[in-house]
Amino acid sequence: MTTQPSKTLETFDNPQPGRDYHIHMEIPEFTCLCPKTGQPDFATLILDYIADRKCVELKSLKLYIWSFRNEGHFHEDVTNRVLDDLVAATQPRFMRLTAKFYVRGGIFTNVVAEHRKPGWQPAPLVELTQFQAQSNTRG
Amino acid sequence: MTTQPSKTLETFDNPQPGRDYHIHMEIPEFTCLCPKTGQPDFATLILDYIADRKCVELKSLKLYIWSFRNEGHFHEDVTNRVLDDLVAATQPRFMRLTAKFYVRGGIFTNVVAEHRKPGWQPAPLVELTQFQAQSNTRG
Amino acid sequence: MTTQPSKTLETFDNPQPGRDYHIHMEIPEFTCLCPKTGQPDFATLILDYIADRKCVELKSLKLYIWSFRNEGHFHEDVTNRVLDDLVAATQPRFMRLTAKFYVRGGIFTNVVAEHRKPGWQPAPLVELTQFQAQSNTRG
Amino acid sequence: MTTQPSKTLETFDNPQPGRDYHIHMEIPEFTCLCPKTGQPDFATLILDYIADRKCVELKSLKLYIWSFRNEGHFHEDVTNRVLDDLVAATQPRFMRLTAKFYVRGGIFTNVVAEHRKPGWQPAPLVELTQFQAQSNTRG
Amino acid sequence: MTTQPSKTLETFDNPQPGRDYHIHMEIPEFTCLCPKTGQPDFATLILDYIADRKCVELKSLKLYIWSFRNEGHFHEDVTNRVLDDLVAATQPRFMRLTAKFYVRGGIFTNVVAEHRKPGWQPAPLVELTQFQAQSNTRG
Amino acid sequence: MTTQPSKTLETFDNPQPGRDYHIHMEIPEFTCLCPKTGQPDFATLILDYIADRKCVELKSLKLYIWSFRNEGHFHEDVTNRVLDDLVAATQPRFMRLTAKFYVRGGIFTNVVAEHRKPGWQPAPLVELTQFQAQSNTRG
Amino acid sequence: MTTQPSKTLETFDNPQPGRDYHIHMEIPEFTCLCPKTGQPDFATLILDYIADRKCVELKSLKLYIWSFRNEGHFHEDVTNRVLDDLVAATQPRFMRLTAKFYVRGGIFTNVVAEHRKPGWQPAPLVELTQFQAQSNTRG
Amino acid sequence: MTTQPSKTLETFDNPQPGRDYHIHMEIPEFTCLCPKTGQPDFATLILDYIADRKCVELKSLKLYIWSFRNEGHFHEDVTNRVLDDLVAATQPRFMRLTAKFYVRGGIFTNVVAEHRKPGWQPAPLVELTQFQAQSNTRG
Amino acid sequence: MTTQPSKTLETFDNPQPGRDYHIHMEIPEFTCLCPKTGQPDFATLILDYIADRKCVELKSLKLYIWSFRNEGHFHEDVTNRVLDDLVAATQPRFMRLTAKFYVRGGIFTNVVAEHRKPGWQPAPLVELTQFQAQSNTRG
Amino acid sequence: MTTQPSKTLETFDNPQPGRDYHIHMEIPEFTCLCPKTGQPDFATLILDYIADRKCVELKSLKLYIWSFRNEGHFHEDVTNRVLDDLVAATQPRFMRLTAKFYVRGGIFTNVVAEHRKPGWQPAPLVELTQFQAQSNTRG
Ligand SMILES: [Ca+2]
Ligand SMILES: [Ca+2]
Ligand SMILES: [Ca+2]
Ligand SMILES: [Ca+2]
Ligand SMILES: [Ca+2]
Ligand SMILES: [Ca+2]
Ligand SMILES: [Ca+2]
Ligand SMILES: [Ca+2]
Ligand SMILES: [Ca+2]
Ligand SMILES: [Ca+2]
Ligand SMILES: [Ca+2]
Ligand SMILES: [Ca+2]
Ligand SMILES: [Ca+2]
Ligand SMILES: [Ca+2]
Ligand SMILES: [Ca+2]
Ligand SMILES: [Ca+2]
Repeated sequence: MTTQPSKTLETFDNPQPGRDYHIHMEIPEFTCLCPKTGQPDFATLILDYIADRKCVELKSLKLYIWSFRNEGHFHEDVTNRVLDDLVAATQPRFMRLTAKFYVRGGIFTNVVAEHRKPGWQPAPLVELTQFQAQSNTRG
Repeated sequence: MTTQPSKTLETFDNPQPGRDYHIHMEIPEFTCLCPKTGQPDFATLILDYIADRKCVELKSLKLYIWSFRNEGHFHEDVTNRVLDDLVAATQPRFMRLTAKFYVRGGIFTNVVAEHRKPGWQPAPLVELTQFQAQSNTRG
Repeated sequence: MTTQPSKTLETFDNPQPGRDYHIHMEIPEFTCLCPKTGQPDFATLILDYIADRKCVELKSLKLYIWSFRNEGHFHEDVTNRVLDDLVAATQPRFMRLTAKFYVRGGIFTNVVAEHRKPGWQPAPLVELTQFQAQSNTRG
Repeated sequence: MTTQPSKTLETFDNPQPGRDYHIHMEIPEFTCLCPKTGQPDFATLILDYIADRKCVELKSLKLYIWSFRNEGHFHEDVTNRVLDDLVAATQPRFMRLTAKFYVRGGIFTNVVAEHRKPGWQPAPLVELTQFQAQSNTRG
Repeated sequence: MTTQPSKTLETFDNPQPGRDYHIHMEIPEFTCLCPKTGQPDFATLILDYIADRKCVELKSLKLYIWSFRNEGHFHEDVTNRVLDDLVAATQPRFMRLTAKFYVRGGIFTNVVAEHRKPGWQPAPLVELTQFQAQSNTRG
Repeated sequence: MTTQPSKTLETFDNPQPGRDYHIHMEIPEFTCLCPKTGQPDFATLILDYIADRKCVELKSLKLYIWSFRNEGHFHEDVTNRVLDDLVAATQPRFMRLTAKFYVRGGIFTNVVAEHRKPGWQPAPLVELTQFQAQSNTRG
Repeated sequence: MTTQPSKTLETFDNPQPGRDYHIHMEIPEFTCLCPKTGQPDFATLILDYIADRKCVELKSLKLYIWSFRNEGHFHEDVTNRVLDDLVAATQPRFMRLTAKFYVRGGIFTNVVAEHRKPGWQPAPLVELTQFQAQSNTRG
Repeated sequence: MTTQPSKTLETFDNPQPGRDYHIHMEIPEFTCLCPKTGQPDFATLILDYIADRKCVELKSLKLYIWSFRNEGHFHEDVTNRVLDDLVAATQPRFMRLTAKFYVRGGIFTNVVAEHRKPGWQPAPLVELTQFQAQSNTRG
Repeated sequence: MTTQPSKTLETFDNPQPGRDYHIHMEIPEFTCLCPKTGQPDFATLILDYIADRKCVELKSLKLYIWSFRNEGHFHEDVTNRVLDDLVAATQPRFMRLTAKFYVRGGIFTNVVAEHRKPGWQPAPLVELTQFQAQSNTRG
Repeated sequence: MTTQPSKTLETFDNPQPGRDYHIHMEIPEFTCLCPKTGQPDFATLILDYIADRKCVELKSLKLYIWSFRNEGHFHEDVTNRVLDDLVAATQPRFMRLTAKFYVRGGIFTNVVAEHRKPGWQPAPLVELTQFQAQSNTRG
């Protein structure tokens, strides 16, 4: 039962296209190679999007991430590339990709890139008090 | 003394309908089944709303959450469905449902959906310095 | 030397009424009774306000909080009621009361209510980088 | 080699007056006396400011803080007074003082006061994703 | 194999100049000398920028940081100077430098300075619910 | 449906008396009165025990804790008294009660008391590496 | 592709039976029913063991945990029962099961039970300084 | 209503002298002067003891701590002196004083000193699994 | 400038063989493949050892870790294998390897294995109060 | 007013040589050079000792730490060397030095070394329940 890495991102129909709702995914197992030295690089990817007609399918996303394992990519470039692939597959109303790379040379690098569908506007935000999860215990 | 899961959400009259105030509830015990594999899924639901005439009753909310235990639902779909049921029962001025699903395939997924009553506007926010709870101790 | 619980909230003159400044108080020892079952309920109250002519006096606030110890109140109702009492006593420019109730039936409930003096406007916020307290140590 | 507490706040010339930049200082060792009971009070002061022509000198700030050690002051009053002294000494474009007082009678009190130079406007904020310090490690 | 500290900041071409994306770097190993006492000072630098044509190269950034090791600089001054050097080398659309200095005399000092390219405007922010990394576990 | 506070601690038969296993309970809602001033005191109780023939029943424990609500007790005394009552009801092989009292006069007080059944010996401990819950994520 | 819950615990051969090494597993998705009220209960199970000839297989462990989903069990009893099943399947040199149950009636309950193979002795512990993961960063 | 600092430590009778139980107090408001420079020093004191006939009274402990406010003392010396005074007043079976001094010259200093009554032996420890407070929530 | 993964672990002479001292290394970038499904697995390795004549060289350790990137290994097996290789290369007095694997199937697995040189005994431990890093700040 | 780095460690007389008490110091600003590449290395040093006749003087310790700033040293070697110097200067009953080096090549390294005076024995430890600082607040 061996699955294979793949550049194909599968999608499914957005179950609630009438509403601008927010999907957040954390992908802590991204790894590729440094194009200069060939050594492994590691990152956590964070994906935030508002779907239009399509949502990205979880398992194909995992195989897509796996497909970078033996490829060489620079930090700034690969973040924009993964965003472009996700946008091409799902045509979202809004998408933000955050890549947090593991420390190199004593320096930490994160890259954040966004795509916005032309003409789409976010609803004006309703700002509420925010609470730390389950903090109303005693102790 | 056995209580039963139920899709009925009971309500009580908003004790202060003259004021837009914020009710926040954390429901850490949501579980349903994966419609593809039949395996259990787990989530924490976070409900934020501004009531109009009705507030959701705590105990019936708990039985409602329980009613999903043996049903199959996709993540994006069930979040919108729970929101729709809560909106139908309470007709709030504003409601936001946040679902944080337990890790699957090494990936974390959260979904956030909102409802706003037509014509309702949030009061302009008064932004104040925020403090971490009881942080002004020494140590 | 026995002090008594009391519904009277004492005040003192705002020492700097020419400035809209923010007073924040955390009151972790609120307890009352559930009006349905008679069982004790517990909450932390967080009070944020911008005084006008009067500030609430700390010791009388403590005795006021104590006065709820043997009374029955619902969560949504008591939060609005405490806010109303504090507003009546101090007539503030702005006041927000946040009540974080201890977990019941596996569900956490918080309630946030605000009062704003008619005609009062908050100064436009100056947003600055925020820092975690004393985080610039090494380790 | 004994230094002395002092109400004099020394300053030095702002090295970059052409730019609105933010200086943040945390002063965890403020102590004064309660004017009612004579007992010691403790606070952490947090100073955020945008200098105009002058910056406050670190060592004189420390001696100034020390000067409150044997004086009696109320919480709301002393916060406004320290802000007024710092404003008088440095004439800043913007200054915010946050005082977090140690718990008294089971209640935590913080006070936040600001000064803004007439006519000064903050630059419109560029809002970016915020990251927890050095969080992109694994573990 | 000895490398040398250097004031030269090398750059590479922005791989995606058609998009305003955010690069964040944390540099925890800045040290220089106090110009008054000659004693070592330590800081963590945090760099946030939106590149235009050029990105700063990681290794040369490290050697640049090293070049301050035996120089004397005041806190407010060196933060503005490092920002100026980075702006000169990369001509970014936006750049913010945050310097968090190690505690001195019991007081913590941070300095934040920004540069904005004339005529550049940030895209209006899409504000989404924020999540603590990988918090949707149980425990 | 009103339940009543009660000094009676109900028990049930230890389901596995052949094994020395550890039961740990955290009771964050203990409150009594200060016998000197009549003012409310608050504590979190932590109960650790190794049952012999009987286990303490959860609901009766809750009502027992409630029974202290309007009684006056000193910190050191009430901790020993609650331990004595629990020992009398369950006759455990080992029991430890930890009481963490809310801050008074700026000082935090905790009290820890133990009971050991004559002749009972704990099994020699098998010490293993300890892990922070669910820490092996990336981020 | 539907898998089924199952009471069968599969095993595989210990790859290094010549060494007493420690296997630690955290299982955050245990749920069963309260035998009194029929309502769902939730727990995190933590399994620590030193294998003899057999190790427990991860996927069958997951299906075994799933098998409790619709069964009624008391806290103290089910912890001992899961331990007994795991011991029967793997015959370990040492096994400790820790069950952390979700809060009920405002009280938190954890249960810890151990099994030790007759005649087996743990190696005398080598105690070393312990470090918080990746704490030697600056910030 | 002015209270005074005092070197007198008052005591009350140990309510349970038949049991070796542990009293833990945290005193976050210790301040004295540096005997060399006259500048203020700050520390948190942590007191752990097993009483014999007498317990230290909370209010007198607070006044005793206050009495150091205007005295000059070295770190290592004052820790031993406070321990000696507490031992003289209460004659405990065991007492440990931990003093955590605020950072000076970029270096943190803590001092820990103990007293043990001749002939007294601690009961052999029963070691149990330790839990982080109220950690068995989901989130 | 491409380096290569390698199974060779280089060493250097222990600079202080006359003393039993502890070397601790955290290696957060271990990845291999699941031998059943071919999918990537991730772990953090923690190495604690007391060297005899040789210490493991940091750069060769990094290349050795890299060498597992495209190999298939089970969790329990690979932990013992890495330990065996490190023991063969350095012949330490004591070595402990802790592997924390990323969550799979909702379950977290850690493995801890040790080697001890025949006849070597650890010095009896001197147990001291432990402090959280730089915790004696105020705030 | 320029002070100079120095290898001389000054001492003062132990104020309480009749008692084995514990002095703990955290020194977060150690930096030296890598002897291979010449690049800066950073570490936090943690010193724990039980003095005999002499204590190490804080200011001279700071100048001693500074003296390593431009010297080349390997991690394992410099930790033992600093310990040796401190032992030579103070002749303590017991001393432990812990060095936590900043991440290099993606790997974190800590080194712990101890000295014990011949014939000295630590007092048998009195083990007490440990508490997280000021954790008995509510929230
Ligand atoms: Ca906003
Ligand atoms: Ca808590
Ligand atoms: Ca805002
Ligand atoms: Ca820190
Ligand atoms: Ca904003
Ligand atoms: Ca981390
Ligand atoms: Ca968690
Ligand atoms: Ca984590
Ligand atoms: Ca031990
Ligand atoms: Ca850190
Ligand atoms: Ca132990
Ligand atoms: Ca929690
Ligand atoms: Ca120990
Ligand atoms: Ca703190
Ligand atoms: Ca021990
Ligand atoms: Ca707390």
